[in-house]
Amino acid sequence: MDLALKLEITSTIPLHRQLYDELRQAILSGRLVSGQRMPSTRSLAKTLGISRATVLFSYDQLLSEGYLSTVPASGTFVACQLPNELLRSTTAPPISSTFPPCIELSSYGATLATVELPPAPGQKPLINFGCYGRPAFDEFPIHLWRRLLSRACRLSNTILDYPADPLGYKPLREAIACYLTQSRAVRCEPEQVIIVNGSQQALDLIARLFLNQGDRVVMENPGYFEARYIFQAQGAEVLPIPVDRSGLIVEKLSTLTIPVKLVYVTPSHQFPTGAALSLSRRLALLAWAQQTGAMILEDDYDSEFRYDERPIPALQGLTSSDSVIYIGTFSKVLFPSLRMGYLVVPPQLVPVVARAKWLVDRQSPLLEQHALTDFINEGHLESHIRRMRILYAERRRTLVQALNQYLGNQVTIIGENAGMNAMVQFHIQLSDEEMSDRAEQRGVELISACSCYMNAEDGKGMFLLGCTDLDSEVIQEGVRRLAEILNAAEP
Amino acid sequence: MDLALKLEITSTIPLHRQLYDELRQAILSGRLVSGQRMPSTRSLAKTLGISRATVLFSYDQLLSEGYLSTVPASGTFVACQLPNELLRSTTAPPISSTFPPCIELSSYGATLATVELPPAPGQKPLINFGCYGRPAFDEFPIHLWRRLLSRACRLSNTILDYPADPLGYKPLREAIACYLTQSRAVRCEPEQVIIVNGSQQALDLIARLFLNQGDRVVMENPGYFEARYIFQAQGAEVLPIPVDRSGLIVEKLSTLTIPVKLVYVTPSHQFPTGAALSLSRRLALLAWAQQTGAMILEDDYDSEFRYDERPIPALQGLTSSDSVIYIGTFSKVLFPSLRMGYLVVPPQLVPVVARAKWLVDRQSPLLEQHALTDFINEGHLESHIRRMRILYAERRRTLVQALNQYLGNQVTIIGENAGMNAMVQFHIQLSDEEMSDRAEQRGVELISACSCYMNAEDGKGMFLLGCTDLDSEVIQEGVRRLAEILNAAEP
Repeated sequence: MDLALKLEITSTIPLHRQLYDELRQAILSGRLVSGQRMPSTRSLAKTLGISRATVLFSYDQLLSEGYLSTVPASGTFVACQLPNELLRSTTAPPISSTFPPCIELSSYGATLATVELPPAPGQKPLINFGCYGRPAFDEFPIHLWRRLLSRACRLSNTILDYPADPLGYKPLREAIACYLTQSRAVRCEPEQVIIVNGSQQALDLIARLFLNQGDRVVMENPGYFEARYIFQAQGAEVLPIPVDRSGLIVEKLSTLTIPVKLVYVTPSHQFPTGAALSLSRRLALLAWAQQTGAMILEDDYDSEFRYDERPIPALQGLTSSDSVIYIGTFSKVLFPSLRMGYLVVPPQLVPVVARAKWLVDRQSPLLEQHALTDFINEGHLESHIRRMRILYAERRRTLVQALNQYLGNQVTIIGENAGMNAMVQFHIQLSDEEMSDRAEQRGVELISACSCYMNAEDGKGMFLLGCTDLDSEVIQEGVRRLAEILNAAEP
Repeated sequence: MDLALKLEITSTIPLHRQLYDELRQAILSGRLVSGQRMPSTRSLAKTLGISRATVLFSYDQLLSEGYLSTVPASGTFVACQLPNELLRSTTAPPISSTFPPCIELSSYGATLATVELPPAPGQKPLINFGCYGRPAFDEFPIHLWRRLLSRACRLSNTILDYPADPLGYKPLREAIACYLTQSRAVRCEPEQVIIVNGSQQALDLIARLFLNQGDRVVMENPGYFEARYIFQAQGAEVLPIPVDRSGLIVEKLSTLTIPVKLVYVTPSHQFPTGAALSLSRRLALLAWAQQTGAMILEDDYDSEFRYDERPIPALQGLTSSDSVIYIGTFSKVLFPSLRMGYLVVPPQLVPVVARAKWLVDRQSPLLEQHALTDFINEGHLESHIRRMRILYAERRRTLVQALNQYLGNQVTIIGENAGMNAMVQFHIQLSDEEMSDRAEQRGVELISACSCYMNAEDGKGMFLLGCTDLDSEVIQEGVRRLAEILNAAEP
């Protein structure tokens, strides 16, 4: 057999690997054909001037992968059970590269086409009002966080292992239960707290565990559109109920004639209007849920930031029934890329949520759970929230003052006393797109609130202004530029 | 109005908060009844000997929460739209605490009851063969990892923010694409790589995006039972196809008369038998998938650890068609609590997977993605894998030698040349439970492989032995103790 094989003795690639590659190539290209006898390892070694061990090594590999086969007491052959045509076309792709996958998406997958992805990162205008709910990153005690991560690394023998518990690191669950009991009047034991990857995963897990195709979910309108995407992707029908200055108009629930499985609410600080759900409505909502058997999903995403009043206790704490599932997040009080949030569920639901979390991704990363535990237990969370509450209140005041000063009655400010964003309505003839475009031309990012409305048309003129990560001067300058647009557009 | 209110001037609780609590309590307990006029702020301040601002502050809070209401030019009243019975029962729970939630689980949720959770952490026997697939944690360069995390923290202004891309940190995706192309012969561009929370989330995302209730999935039998749970929870029917020493018996696929949506395979190192799928079967599998339009899901979970041979290239790289989705993880080569893995999907599927990841939990944590990128790009991944490959090979050799030495023909070792676990069959009359119990009595944790079999009975006598995190002496001692059991049980 005249077999030309390229081997470079001086190459950094081991000889046995070069030989393997050459032989495999020869088989795939058809130079060596099925059933053909291979030279003995001894003779090939001699021909090539290399050690027999090298040849043996390459042959073994080819044997184990099925390129070669051995007939006892006879020799080694190019495997014959391989169809020639498949073999030949493997160097060139074995299957036409235009072959489209016939596979269809699931009904879940098919709904996702309408989900809006975040815009690709690019040059953002200097004055970015668009990041509503974005903490002031330069105020985060990153050195402290680094130290806590380092400290957690010292526990390397326990902290690297497979998670002991899908519900999360026990001391973190205890710290959160304590925080929630004290600061949010949530009734819970650590056993009911489940660590998840941000409130987003909390929403998704609950939707998945409770919603079948066609089930109904009540949502505030306007409301948190990302939650709506999740419910809709799960196949649920979303029933919008309007919101006023006291939050969800709970009385309207009794007009519903079809059974509702879940009610999603943001009672502390309605997203996006900022309204606090009044006590009477809270009690009415709980009573309605008890009557109808619906589950309430309370999303308490930024309740830490109330500026004029003391925090409003969580809805969950107002009842001893098991009709409320509570969701919180560290994305606002710490930072979003941490991807850490939590669920508080009725005791009897803990096992099924644990199993879902275990199947979905086992557990949230452990190192950061340790760091977060120390952050809370050593009082850093509380002091950071306190500092940020003061800072955000100031920035918000600046925003409101600037809006009043520059825009006067051209703007209505909605829900100005809490949270990390303000919703405003500009009284202007421009379309939302024109408004945003003109703002961008002036270096200002401005986000329409229309996604929050079931019917986007209803949100016309409404915008979400985030200011928590902007300096006072930047806020003032931004509003001044918005005023330019409005004044230029005056009829 | 004679209103006894407890205020402690010397308390650390602010007066306005004490007043708020007292008034709220009075309303909830019924001491103040609906419609009752409240004293004016001025007179209450005088009565209590506190400043009027304090009273105003408390009243405002109670107004905003709906406990009080104002009638213009008339005064402040206990809100009357609150049903008295609800109000009275709020201190005592408003709703009977025995109220069971009527809510039903979704069909997904209902299937989870059968999912096995990991055993609660407790005293594990000293010699733990049960942790198959568990890396040697004391060999992980944790100091280096700590340094890389610290370095990432320095980028605090970009690293804390909301994720720019649900697909993951771009440089990490580039580093993984490069690693896969070189080490695993995977054909991919960085754009096709999607960062997820371990291979578990990869499996779950794909199952969710492609499987509807009743769809069929082919799995190796025995196979990775955690994948089976995911497919079954998604409502799919799992069709088991047997495995021999060359992996999945692909020829049996052609006997299937019903359409198959997905084929889940572990071709590099079949779980749990350790077989490598032969080339002829790889090609036949690809051809069958092309013919039938089924999607192949290649789980390459521990292919880095082959000891006698060079790595077998990935199935995905053998075809230029878009019929293979490739899954990998850092749980084995780094550490499991990192929760980091990746998907390589055909280009046209990238957008839908991105949307699913965005809805499910936005993105994986960013800080650790940065650290991992540096870990790979600075060559640490390669050198760590190289070191571990030598160590694990040695430990595995020790295990195989000890099994042969102590147990001789009482044991058959299956798939001994690769991976992080060995499957063994003990030839013994004891049941699997008896075997595990007796091992535990001798301080040895032993895990039956029966979960891997569609019909658990078929796995009788089969056990999974993990040895990668055990010292040689521990391995030998463990096997010696197992031999004691087998010898004591000899008829």
